[in-house]
Amino acid sequence: MQKIKLGMIGGGIGAFIGDTHRRAARISNQFELVGGVFDVDFEKAKEFADQQAISLDRTYPDIDTMIEKEKALPEAERIQVVSIVTPNFLHYPFAKQLLENGFHVVCEKPMTMSVEEAEDLKKVVEKSGLTFVLTHTYTGYPMVRQMREFIKEGKLGQIQRVDAQYYQGWVNGIMHSEDDSLGVWRFDPKVAGMSSCMGDIGVHAFNLIEYTTGKKVTKVLADLNNVVEKAKLDLDGTVMLRFDEPFLGLVRSSQMATGEENNINIAVYGSKGCLKWNQEDPNYLHFIPADQPRVVYKPGNPYNTAFAENSHTMPFGHPEGIYEAFANLYAGAAKSIRGEELQDGEFTNVDDGVRGMKFITQVVASNKDGNVWKEL
Amino acid sequence: MQKIKLGMIGGGIGAFIGDTHRRAARISNQFELVGGVFDVDFEKAKEFADQQAISLDRTYPDIDTMIEKEKALPEAERIQVVSIVTPNFLHYPFAKQLLENGFHVVCEKPMTMSVEEAEDLKKVVEKSGLTFVLTHTYTGYPMVRQMREFIKEGKLGQIQRVDAQYYQGWVNGIMHSEDDSLGVWRFDPKVAGMSSCMGDIGVHAFNLIEYTTGKKVTKVLADLNNVVEKAKLDLDGTVMLRFDEPFLGLVRSSQMATGEENNINIAVYGSKGCLKWNQEDPNYLHFIPADQPRVVYKPGNPYNTAFAENSHTMPFGHPEGIYEAFANLYAGAAKSIRGEELQDGEFTNVDDGVRGMKFITQVVASNKDGNVWKEL
Amino acid sequence: MQKIKLGMIGGGIGAFIGDTHRRAARISNQFELVGGVFDVDFEKAKEFADQQAISLDRTYPDIDTMIEKEKALPEAERIQVVSIVTPNFLHYPFAKQLLENGFHVVCEKPMTMSVEEAEDLKKVVEKSGLTFVLTHTYTGYPMVRQMREFIKEGKLGQIQRVDAQYYQGWVNGIMHSEDDSLGVWRFDPKVAGMSSCMGDIGVHAFNLIEYTTGKKVTKVLADLNNVVEKAKLDLDGTVMLRFDEPFLGLVRSSQMATGEENNINIAVYGSKGCLKWNQEDPNYLHFIPADQPRVVYKPGNPYNTAFAENSHTMPFGHPEGIYEAFANLYAGAAKSIRGEELQDGEFTNVDDGVRGMKFITQVVASNKDGNVWKEL
Amino acid sequence: MQKIKLGMIGGGIGAFIGDTHRRAARISNQFELVGGVFDVDFEKAKEFADQQAISLDRTYPDIDTMIEKEKALPEAERIQVVSIVTPNFLHYPFAKQLLENGFHVVCEKPMTMSVEEAEDLKKVVEKSGLTFVLTHTYTGYPMVRQMREFIKEGKLGQIQRVDAQYYQGWVNGIMHSEDDSLGVWRFDPKVAGMSSCMGDIGVHAFNLIEYTTGKKVTKVLADLNNVVEKAKLDLDGTVMLRFDEPFLGLVRSSQMATGEENNINIAVYGSKGCLKWNQEDPNYLHFIPADQPRVVYKPGNPYNTAFAENSHTMPFGHPEGIYEAFANLYAGAAKSIRGEELQDGEFTNVDDGVRGMKFITQVVASNKDGNVWKEL
Repeated sequence: MQKIKLGMIGGGIGAFIGDTHRRAARISNQFELVGGVFDVDFEKAKEFADQQAISLDRTYPDIDTMIEKEKALPEAERIQVVSIVTPNFLHYPFAKQLLENGFHVVCEKPMTMSVEEAEDLKKVVEKSGLTFVLTHTYTGYPMVRQMREFIKEGKLGQIQRVDAQYYQGWVNGIMHSEDDSLGVWRFDPKVAGMSSCMGDIGVHAFNLIEYTTGKKVTKVLADLNNVVEKAKLDLDGTVMLRFDEPFLGLVRSSQMATGEENNINIAVYGSKGCLKWNQEDPNYLHFIPADQPRVVYKPGNPYNTAFAENSHTMPFGHPEGIYEAFANLYAGAAKSIRGEELQDGEFTNVDDGVRGMKFITQVVASNKDGNVWKEL
Repeated sequence: MQKIKLGMIGGGIGAFIGDTHRRAARISNQFELVGGVFDVDFEKAKEFADQQAISLDRTYPDIDTMIEKEKALPEAERIQVVSIVTPNFLHYPFAKQLLENGFHVVCEKPMTMSVEEAEDLKKVVEKSGLTFVLTHTYTGYPMVRQMREFIKEGKLGQIQRVDAQYYQGWVNGIMHSEDDSLGVWRFDPKVAGMSSCMGDIGVHAFNLIEYTTGKKVTKVLADLNNVVEKAKLDLDGTVMLRFDEPFLGLVRSSQMATGEENNINIAVYGSKGCLKWNQEDPNYLHFIPADQPRVVYKPGNPYNTAFAENSHTMPFGHPEGIYEAFANLYAGAAKSIRGEELQDGEFTNVDDGVRGMKFITQVVASNKDGNVWKEL
Repeated sequence: MQKIKLGMIGGGIGAFIGDTHRRAARISNQFELVGGVFDVDFEKAKEFADQQAISLDRTYPDIDTMIEKEKALPEAERIQVVSIVTPNFLHYPFAKQLLENGFHVVCEKPMTMSVEEAEDLKKVVEKSGLTFVLTHTYTGYPMVRQMREFIKEGKLGQIQRVDAQYYQGWVNGIMHSEDDSLGVWRFDPKVAGMSSCMGDIGVHAFNLIEYTTGKKVTKVLADLNNVVEKAKLDLDGTVMLRFDEPFLGLVRSSQMATGEENNINIAVYGSKGCLKWNQEDPNYLHFIPADQPRVVYKPGNPYNTAFAENSHTMPFGHPEGIYEAFANLYAGAAKSIRGEELQDGEFTNVDDGVRGMKFITQVVASNKDGNVWKEL
Repeated sequence: MQKIKLGMIGGGIGAFIGDTHRRAARISNQFELVGGVFDVDFEKAKEFADQQAISLDRTYPDIDTMIEKEKALPEAERIQVVSIVTPNFLHYPFAKQLLENGFHVVCEKPMTMSVEEAEDLKKVVEKSGLTFVLTHTYTGYPMVRQMREFIKEGKLGQIQRVDAQYYQGWVNGIMHSEDDSLGVWRFDPKVAGMSSCMGDIGVHAFNLIEYTTGKKVTKVLADLNNVVEKAKLDLDGTVMLRFDEPFLGLVRSSQMATGEENNINIAVYGSKGCLKWNQEDPNYLHFIPADQPRVVYKPGNPYNTAFAENSHTMPFGHPEGIYEAFANLYAGAAKSIRGEELQDGEFTNVDDGVRGMKFITQVVASNKDGNVWKEL
């Protein structure tokens, strides 16, 4: 079987997220990275290609050249799918251009800078008929997928409450440094967009709620905090959620929760029990049925759902981690590109991107207008 | 040394909370239960007294008789302090009457049915010069006390975020039973007051925030949920908090978080680290300093604060539980009654009661008025 | 109902274990401490009685006086049961004397200094027809009792492996101090007997194995370590166990496992699953059925065995601790003294004492003879 | 930079361990799998090569052909290193043949079938001057490496006790099946060698002790259990350890510890504290210093040792798993093959193999001779 020809925009020397995408692609064993536009500085891009043993012939100075040259190649050799791991504001235009030129796309988050762009991109994807993957990484964990399946099967009965949290602490040091500016592009509205904390991580918690419960948030009421004057964007916040059904939801998110590393977790309560999952211990799914003792599911066991088991390769007790979760999204992309039948939920896509942009936009609006409800 | 003569109002046969107070008093070894009004049904009260080996002479039919007869006894024999463990709406009138007649009081929660009553009682306590203990049990745990001390000492630096949660699931079954009424007095506004979930448990989470941080909540914005139509009071809710200082706080509380037992926990984030505590594992206090690994404090160790160590009697590794926490409040009451010097925070008192009633009242108001900010 | 009249030998000012017994008795609410021999120094004994509000008339200078004076009292006033909390070597003679004079006995561990004494005491208990409780405290925890019930019911199938561990670290500091002697009576064979680590704590792990599994150890092979030259007794050791049935067992025990507090735990593996319990988190019983996910039992739930639930008073999620476990042994003693029907396993008794002395004796012999098997 | 040309012996269709090696190699990004002998059935081997997009030209029917053809290629194209993932008894002859023909080797465990073979292979490796990696996977985890560094630095002071456990439960079902034979090659001495449990997994626990402490076991005393009659090899066992220094050690290992998945863990106690690590939660290293609270190290933090941090790529809080641990061994192999400077402990090698074979051999001998000490 031929590997799928993968290209990449961004992700050159020193780029963390590009490296993560490449590892995920290699783990899935479905892709061969054959070329790309790895850096705005072409010399650096070539240096990177050399390090990675990628052909210099297919190391391009810019996306236009890449598209032109690749389209000139015989179909069997041509790049089929492109991973976009550039700065945020370039995700949308590049994704659109690639799709319109017949390339499948794997896109880093956030998908776009506005709801308008997101909705436009959705149309482009639909028109193209191509595969578009938005990498909400945490949906690739086997136990998150099982949570989704369990809820769909009715294991929780009627949902009564949903809480998701995403706390990090890494901004604390930067925030209290004596440096006048925060010195990080993320906190600059011109580069990062309308939100820091909610845009970067809160949206993951939001996505995890919609992904696992299958319920759509209908309105939000947000309280955001920049914490220090020099921060021009939110670094911390709480968002109350409402749904079509009469239960409450909550997203808590912080980038200055000192001491926290990457604490994204979710708890869903229903009439028949609750399910809890925590990303830092990803191989445990806790289910407490009404009036019964807690049950702890772990990957690699026949008692799991097929979806969970298909998302895990090791025997039980051998922990897999975030790279393997990420690789599951790439594996889903591969199945989609090859036209194989997909399981529901194998990757987050343009719809998740539209939902996410609406969430960020309305959270910011709610906060700005004095903590009032905004429709999603 | 003479034991302190203890009386009790309520708490007869089958009364859980009365039994808890008596155990706590016995563990503290500072009190002798000598009499009281154990039941509205005097025959049952006498049966109870017999079971407990309490003198029938000092088993009274009503509070007026008790006060009259006890005051007639020589001072050395007389009841010195009375524990009030009656239904909620009687706490206030009985506490007031007892204080005005020279008895110290240990009062179950909620202290009163309204802010007005609470503020009145505060005046009565102050005028009396007597000891008044409001049993916010969780403040009796050694590691909660240490958390308070640590924050006071500045171990967290400037506070940046506070989250408290109090989730129980026991109402879920009642809520979904076919019985037309919920069949429980707690959900009846006429008996339980203005709130179920926030009034019964949310207020503990609120108290834990003010107790450990020493900060006062200035306003609240609440979203409450009765969940089922037949419930006339809130069974679930979220409350955003603001303080004098510019950090966010949150109280989440639920009585229908199916699968949860008595999950009250708190996390406080500051510029120098965070502290986390969870009531179901009360002997662990987690501290994560900025940029350093997590540290886990346990009772019975010389590295703890004196206050924590004075609140624990066993050697390290021998877990104490909630009865010992409760006993610490009784031990504080004894010290106060004996006129011994008190450590700051040895028991929650009438001020906590006033704060709690304000919290409940304004949370309900915020929700009723459409989720808007209300001053505390 | 009358409280049972309790006496105490030892346990005066500053005595930790005496205080523990008194708290346990108070928590059980079945006993009234009316007198005893609290100290070899009679002045101190009287000071103690005063502190505890115990009648000076029934504070005795020695056991002979106590027995004589108490027997002279009308039966309804007389001490019924005596707790022995003296230094170890006095347990046996005092227990014997008390039983022979008609007093029930609650005895601290170790029961005797030799197997011969233990077997003699067994005869005395049997002849007397009185209640004799040996306080293996950990058997009082609800989840330990449930483990016993579960295994008896066959929840594990055929047992295939048993591991118990009891690690403490408190001797480490003493061991490495510059003081020439260890300065602690426990390490002196003349006072402490034949073993320190195995005699003091290893025997608890052994008892936990026999208590929970209902299986009897038939032989032992031990490797003990004094660690430092100045220690004349074992501070660390491993004991292989064999049973009548062909499965292996193990006791690991250490007093210089630096960093450990009071880490006694047990895991039993059978053909149908395993059960695990850890004393420092006593309110969790882990069961992993073959090919099924882990199940976590917690006290206060209707899904538990009756024995576990009768050993716990608080609602679920309100953690009880070691004092409540200890109180369960006292509650069992009370039932036995009152002639009420006992549940199997409500307290450890003279048989446990005999087994424990055999274990210690043969472990020491096995080690001395070069790590060879010794029959129990 | 050129990737290293990798070959593989074994590991064809359906082979779990071969897949694991390939994933590890891909994650490390240092290798390109260019050919090999994937199956004894050459047709299946070719089918496999096709699936994996490996050239059929370099898919060989046997090792002799592979060696001959590869040596005929220009050096720049030739396979440099070969992963051996065949059945156990072929590890030794193939490793020897490959080394003698100038190929570096990555070898699955067990290295050989006897101590004699192991010692012979050691001579071959030394003579060859080539890289030989024995994949004791668990040594690739960042927190295991940090444990080694911490102990080397003296963080524990003088070692006083070491316990390692490796419990699995997967054999339980097979063991109790009605099938007359166990039907698994592992339990057949002719194929699996002299030991099942100790040979397959106990030896990992042994290796972990020597790897982390840097101490050498000098003698062993073992008690092994076949559990069921039809099993011809040990499925469960305990091994007492002695070292040059006067502290005790222990290896417990089981394949029928029902409910356990892959529970390999280690605890090392010293005069200054203890360190604990558990493979199923690999991203936590617990250190409890004498008289101080527990400290929990996690990967991705500047407070870790350089060796730990070089063995982890994700930011803190993003859990890596066993594939990444395995990839660290491959990364070490790559450094060694390229002649780069190695950190002490970057991969387990032929010396670990010799030690492991001695351990297995003497454990079996100790058990056979009646649980007596055997020198290692």
